[in-house]
Amino acid sequence: MDTSRLEAFSDGVVAILITIMVLELKVPHDASWGALVELEPVLLAYVLSFVYLGIYWNNHHHLIYATERVSGPVLWANLHLLFWLSLVPFATAWMGENSFATVPTACYGCVLLAAGLAYTILVRSIIKQDGPSSKLASAIGNDLKGYLSLALYVVAIPLAFVRNYVAGAIYVFVALMWLVPDRRIESRLAR
Amino acid sequence: MDTSRLEAFSDGVVAILITIMVLELKVPHDASWGALVELEPVLLAYVLSFVYLGIYWNNHHHLIYATERVSGPVLWANLHLLFWLSLVPFATAWMGENSFATVPTACYGCVLLAAGLAYTILVRSIIKQDGPSSKLASAIGNDLKGYLSLALYVVAIPLAFVRNYVAGAIYVFVALMWLVPDRRIESRLAR
Amino acid sequence: MDTSRLEAFSDGVVAILITIMVLELKVPHDASWGALVELEPVLLAYVLSFVYLGIYWNNHHHLIYATERVSGPVLWANLHLLFWLSLVPFATAWMGENSFATVPTACYGCVLLAAGLAYTILVRSIIKQDGPSSKLASAIGNDLKGYLSLALYVVAIPLAFVRNYVAGAIYVFVALMWLVPDRRIESRLAR
Amino acid sequence: MDTSRLEAFSDGVVAILITIMVLELKVPHDASWGALVELEPVLLAYVLSFVYLGIYWNNHHHLIYATERVSGPVLWANLHLLFWLSLVPFATAWMGENSFATVPTACYGCVLLAAGLAYTILVRSIIKQDGPSSKLASAIGNDLKGYLSLALYVVAIPLAFVRNYVAGAIYVFVALMWLVPDRRIESRLAR
Repeated sequence: MDTSRLEAFSDGVVAILITIMVLELKVPHDASWGALVELEPVLLAYVLSFVYLGIYWNNHHHLIYATERVSGPVLWANLHLLFWLSLVPFATAWMGENSFATVPTACYGCVLLAAGLAYTILVRSIIKQDGPSSKLASAIGNDLKGYLSLALYVVAIPLAFVRNYVAGAIYVFVALMWLVPDRRIESRLAR
Repeated sequence: MDTSRLEAFSDGVVAILITIMVLELKVPHDASWGALVELEPVLLAYVLSFVYLGIYWNNHHHLIYATERVSGPVLWANLHLLFWLSLVPFATAWMGENSFATVPTACYGCVLLAAGLAYTILVRSIIKQDGPSSKLASAIGNDLKGYLSLALYVVAIPLAFVRNYVAGAIYVFVALMWLVPDRRIESRLAR
Repeated sequence: MDTSRLEAFSDGVVAILITIMVLELKVPHDASWGALVELEPVLLAYVLSFVYLGIYWNNHHHLIYATERVSGPVLWANLHLLFWLSLVPFATAWMGENSFATVPTACYGCVLLAAGLAYTILVRSIIKQDGPSSKLASAIGNDLKGYLSLALYVVAIPLAFVRNYVAGAIYVFVALMWLVPDRRIESRLAR
Repeated sequence: MDTSRLEAFSDGVVAILITIMVLELKVPHDASWGALVELEPVLLAYVLSFVYLGIYWNNHHHLIYATERVSGPVLWANLHLLFWLSLVPFATAWMGENSFATVPTACYGCVLLAAGLAYTILVRSIIKQDGPSSKLASAIGNDLKGYLSLALYVVAIPLAFVRNYVAGAIYVFVALMWLVPDRRIESRLAR
C-alpha cells in the first residue's frame, strides 16, 4: 500500500478536527462586547489547539513524506494518533469553558501527552518497517525535541493542580518549540 | 468510471463520521474528575466505534484497491454501505449516553449488522461486475470471517436484552477479529 | 483551470453535507424502542435526503467528467448549486421534526426545485463554454428528465398544502427516477 | 514541499467551514412560514458568508496555482489565513442571530479585515519566497483591489456603530467587487 491514501485520510481528519473546534465557540445570546470578553478563555484555548493541530498536520506531512510504504502496524499506529487528536476539541472546550480550571487543564495535558506518545509510536513503527538505515531513521536521529516535549507534558500535568497558568505556559512553550517545521527531515531530504 | 473518485468520496465520508462522533462527547459543565468519570460509558462507546470505522476504512481501502472499475450498481452498493455507517455516530451516542442500556445496545448491533450486510452486498456486486476469475473473487474466497461477523451480530442483538455486557463483549470480539487487516487480499495482490 | 480541484471541492462539500445531516438525528434521552419510533419521520426524511445528495454526487461526477475546462462562470454556477444543496440538511430536519407538516414539506420542495434549477444552470453554463458540439451538449440532448423533475417539484409544492403525503410521494418518485445514473452521458462517452 | 497537499488541506478546511455554517441555521420548532421569516437575518448573513468563503476558495486556488513551492513561512501564513476564516461561521451566526446589531456587525467586519490582512501576508510571503520576478509578483502588481478591500473594512467597522446597514452594504459591495475571479493572475498565466 502506498502512502497517498493514508495521507489523504489523515489530512481529512485533521482538517475536520481543526474546523469543528469552532463549533464549541457557542454563539452568545447577548450582542455586546462583554459577551465576547466572556468568551476570552474559550478563544485562547481555541487558538492554542489550532496551533497544536497545525503543528501535527505539518510534522505528519514531513513524516509521511519520508515514509516509503504503509504496512498494517503503521496504519494502526496512524489511526491511534488520530484517535488522541480527535479528543483535542473535547479537551479544548472543557478547558476553555471552565477558564483553565485545574482538572480540565491537567486533562488537556494528558491528551497532549497521549498524542505525543502516539506520534512517537508512529515514528518508531515506521522506522521499524523501513529499517534503521532508512531516510527517516537518519532524519529523526535521537529525537531530542520529541522526548523533551513528552517530558514537559509530564511536568505540566501535576503543576496544573498547583499553578494552572504554569501548566498553560508550558503548553504554549512546547507549541512555540514546534512552530518551526521539523528541519531534520527537511534537511536530510534536501541532500 | 475509475475507482479514484469513489475512493476519495468514501474516505471523505468516513473521515467526517469518525470525527463528528466526538461532537457527541458533550463537554461537562463541571470541572471535576467526577464529571469525566460520568462520561466513561460515552467514551467507551466512542472508542469502540472509532475502531469499527477504522476497520471499515481499512478494509474498504483494500476492497477498492482490488476493484477494477466502478459501475452503477457498485456505486449504489457503496452509498448503501455509507448510509449504514452514517448511523454509527447516532447509535454510539444513544448507547453511550444510556450506559449500554438494553434497547440502545441492541440497536447498535442492528446498525453493525446492517453495515456488515451492506459490505457483503458491496463485495458481491464488485465480484459480479469483475467476474468470478477476478483478483477480488479469489482473494475473498469463501469469506468466512465476514459471515462469522454477521452471525455474531445476530447472536448479540437478542443477548443484549438478557445480558447487555455479553452483547458488548461480542461487539468487542468482532472488532478484535478484524483489527488484523484483510490479509487475503493483501497476499493475493502481492503475488 | 482544469476540473480536478472543482471536483475535489464539490465532493468534499457533498460528503460533509451528507454526513452532517446525521447530526440532526437528535439522540433521544429515553432508552426505549418508543423513543426510536418517535424518530421515524426524522429518519424517513434523512433517508430521502441521503438518496438525493447521493444522486447529485453521482450526476455531478458524470457532468464534470464530460466537462473540458472550468471558466469563472462555471465555477460560480457550481458554487450556486452547492449553496442550495447546503440548505438540504436544514430543510430535511425541519420537515422531519415536524412530521411532514405542510409548510416544511413545501419548503423542502422549494430547496429541491432551487437545487434542480441550479443544476440546470450549471449544465447550460458548461455547454455555453464548451460549445454546442461538445461531448456534454450531445450527451444531455433535450434533457427531458431534468425538466420533468423541475415540473414535478413545481406541482408538488402547492400540493403539500392540500395533501402532504402526495408531495412526499412526488419527491420519492423523482428520486427513484434519478437513481439510475445518467446513462446518456455514460453511453456517449463510451463511444 | 510541493503545493498539492497545501491545496488539498486548505480546500478541505474551506469546504468544511462553508458547510458547517449551515449548522447555525437552527431548525425552528414551529412549522409555519412565520418561523422561516424570523430566520431571515440569519439566512442573509449565511448567504453573505457563503459568498465570501467562495471568493476566498476561488482566489486561494488562483494564488496557489501561481505558487512554485511551499516553504515553512508560507505554510504558516496559510494556516494563519485559515485561522481567521475559521472564525467566519462564529461571526456570521452572532451577527445573524442578533439581526445585524451593532457590536456583532462590527465584529464580523473585524474578522473580514483580519482574514483580508492574513491573505495579504500570505501573498507577500509567497512573493518573498518566489522572488520579485516570479509569475505571482507580476500578476499581483500593486494589488489595488486587495488594499481597497482592507480600507473599506476599516471604514465599515466604526460605521457599524452609527448605521449598521451601511456597514452591511459595504460588506456586500466588497463581496461583489471580488465575485469576478482574479483575472490578473489568470491573464498573466495565460500568456
